[in-house]
Amino acid sequence: MAGIVALLTDFGYRDHYVGVMKGVIWGISPSVQIADITHAVRPQNVFEGAFLLAQAYPYFPPESIFVAVVDPGVGTQRRPLAARVGDYFFVAPDNGLLSFVIREGEIHRWPMEFVHLTQSAYWLPNVSRSFHGRDVFAPVAAHLAKGVPLEALGPRIEDPIMLPVPEPFPEEGGWQGQIIYIDVFGNLITNIQPHHLAGDLHWKIYYKDREIDKLVNTFGEGRPGDLIAMFDSTGYLSLCIVNGNAEMTLNARVGDSLKMLRS
Amino acid sequence: MAGIVALLTDFGYRDHYVGVMKGVIWGISPSVQIADITHAVRPQNVFEGAFLLAQAYPYFPPESIFVAVVDPGVGTQRRPLAARVGDYFFVAPDNGLLSFVIREGEIHRWPMEFVHLTQSAYWLPNVSRSFHGRDVFAPVAAHLAKGVPLEALGPRIEDPIMLPVPEPFPEEGGWQGQIIYIDVFGNLITNIQPHHLAGDLHWKIYYKDREIDKLVNTFGEGRPGDLIAMFDSTGYLSLCIVNGNAEMTLNARVGDSLKMLRS
Amino acid sequence: MAGIVALLTDFGYRDHYVGVMKGVIWGISPSVQIADITHAVRPQNVFEGAFLLAQAYPYFPPESIFVAVVDPGVGTQRRPLAARVGDYFFVAPDNGLLSFVIREGEIHRWPMEFVHLTQSAYWLPNVSRSFHGRDVFAPVAAHLAKGVPLEALGPRIEDPIMLPVPEPFPEEGGWQGQIIYIDVFGNLITNIQPHHLAGDLHWKIYYKDREIDKLVNTFGEGRPGDLIAMFDSTGYLSLCIVNGNAEMTLNARVGDSLKMLRS
Repeated sequence: MAGIVALLTDFGYRDHYVGVMKGVIWGISPSVQIADITHAVRPQNVFEGAFLLAQAYPYFPPESIFVAVVDPGVGTQRRPLAARVGDYFFVAPDNGLLSFVIREGEIHRWPMEFVHLTQSAYWLPNVSRSFHGRDVFAPVAAHLAKGVPLEALGPRIEDPIMLPVPEPFPEEGGWQGQIIYIDVFGNLITNIQPHHLAGDLHWKIYYKDREIDKLVNTFGEGRPGDLIAMFDSTGYLSLCIVNGNAEMTLNARVGDSLKMLRS
Repeated sequence: MAGIVALLTDFGYRDHYVGVMKGVIWGISPSVQIADITHAVRPQNVFEGAFLLAQAYPYFPPESIFVAVVDPGVGTQRRPLAARVGDYFFVAPDNGLLSFVIREGEIHRWPMEFVHLTQSAYWLPNVSRSFHGRDVFAPVAAHLAKGVPLEALGPRIEDPIMLPVPEPFPEEGGWQGQIIYIDVFGNLITNIQPHHLAGDLHWKIYYKDREIDKLVNTFGEGRPGDLIAMFDSTGYLSLCIVNGNAEMTLNARVGDSLKMLRS
Repeated sequence: MAGIVALLTDFGYRDHYVGVMKGVIWGISPSVQIADITHAVRPQNVFEGAFLLAQAYPYFPPESIFVAVVDPGVGTQRRPLAARVGDYFFVAPDNGLLSFVIREGEIHRWPMEFVHLTQSAYWLPNVSRSFHGRDVFAPVAAHLAKGVPLEALGPRIEDPIMLPVPEPFPEEGGWQGQIIYIDVFGNLITNIQPHHLAGDLHWKIYYKDREIDKLVNTFGEGRPGDLIAMFDSTGYLSLCIVNGNAEMTLNARVGDSLKMLRS
């Protein structure tokens, strides 16, 4: 079993940074398969990285190793971490980047284990102050892929940093939620999940000056240009314009609030 | 033989969508090699996806499997397809994305076979209404890579949707063609192919207010800044500015017409 | 040993060009691992490509093969090259793209060998005039990965083209350097290296109307918004704004000069 390492960073696609991490990984674990989740997390946006990481990992095979690097605190005292959450491994700075993953682990009561990376034998020999993705996180992931146990990498910790994961507020007649991510198609992904429906089928959505009078199951229930609301492939309620771009049409922003009320 | 899966989508590079498809593929077929052709097809531009797919596949080894997802009709009744065209496999929505490939198959009289994907045993257990790339097309490709035969995936069909592939019109003294693709360098790729020359060597090209007085074989025959016309690596006649960008200089658009006349 | 091929080009992410190169490589050498270093070198910017290639290759395992294609002279008489520099192989047009790598080889007195690619048996059967990445460089790399020796690819040459690699000028009290690269975070990477410090610890940096009164070791020594100077992960002196973007804030450009003077 060769093993899979998947990378998520805010390094972008212009520089050599991501390619270098792959070189480091293959230097330690030559037959591992490497996938890119994305490298276009908005610079230093830990929350966005945390959301995307949680969207991606469950679709990889068990034992896959995720290296997530959105690291505004590189070169400070922030801890480097490795973790096991359920069937998966994660390597990341301790800044909240695992928040969505850990919350899911808590909900499902998966076994979780966290270590503070202190064993420099598993890093590159020279560690820069500004690129731990290359010097610490990539080599640690490669050693995990080779079978090094989590405990060998450093002492166990119990208090990884958690970002607040925004939950909808209960409202008279429903919920007030917010937009937590906007994808490349301009779809507005909210923090409302199917369990907030509580079995009711009839809801209206209010966002800015728009009213959406029902939830649909698929793009196909609207006509091109319609604003629709559906639980999409992310598992969250999303507002979308059929064959269009809701972000641009509605001038939407992450953090905007919306209401979902029984109709 | 591990097998190769190559991906072409309009999912862009910002989100997790493409990475997730790789996770799904490796979960089913762990040793397959995965290549990205591009994920920057203009959103929902099926024609552009069809053109790029046809440019790419012949350079891959036989038995390679192509997953193409530009899918404005996801969640409607549009059929999901798998196909064999000559030595290659394709998995895509039935919306014309295979048009250029199929036309080539017809010209060369390659064996072709199409199936309507109906056998959900080869999909993810939960199929969303908005992300069949992840839930249907990626797993089907991975099963093909494992050796599942095409016929197992669903019933045979004979009528995949074809987009009109624009052909040049005969004109007094030559042809009227059009720009069908503009690449990242700003090169204007037309629908004129070598067989339209019919053995004649001397042609002039007319585009907007510009006249190009001959076809050249290589960039090296022009000086920097010259507008030249040549059959380039795509196999089509292209208009290029040597060491420059013809798209920006000429404000060119896909669909613009041009003439090629004997001189 | 499967072998690694790493790609660096200015082909961008919109077109099929990079995917096609991977197909060609796997058609010749099916089990090779392929990494992207970057494909966002600014179009035809050979200097930038040369810098990024030199940043990346030392982090890959020995025997890795690098295909670098920034090739404004494709279709002219410029020579296609393959090279061995130290433990690594390179395949590229002869236009200076290997300059930083070769300079490093000279400094370290690594064994170096260069061949002019003339043996078309190791190319695709049909070579276009405009895409040698696909038709010449990718197949040559794949044959190297299969164990074809460098000498089989063409006659040895001793005079690969070198770009001038800008060195800082000595100045009264220090050095005048320049910005040689700006990364995606807006960090300004200069051509000043640790050996220019000559053991002195106290330096001031002057850039535009800004004065930086010391060198720091890490981002953590500044506060958000501070302009700092440090030897970063590139090994060069960089000017950075902590949690910000120095390029945009200072309207910086590659080629801008700066001074580093003893304080």
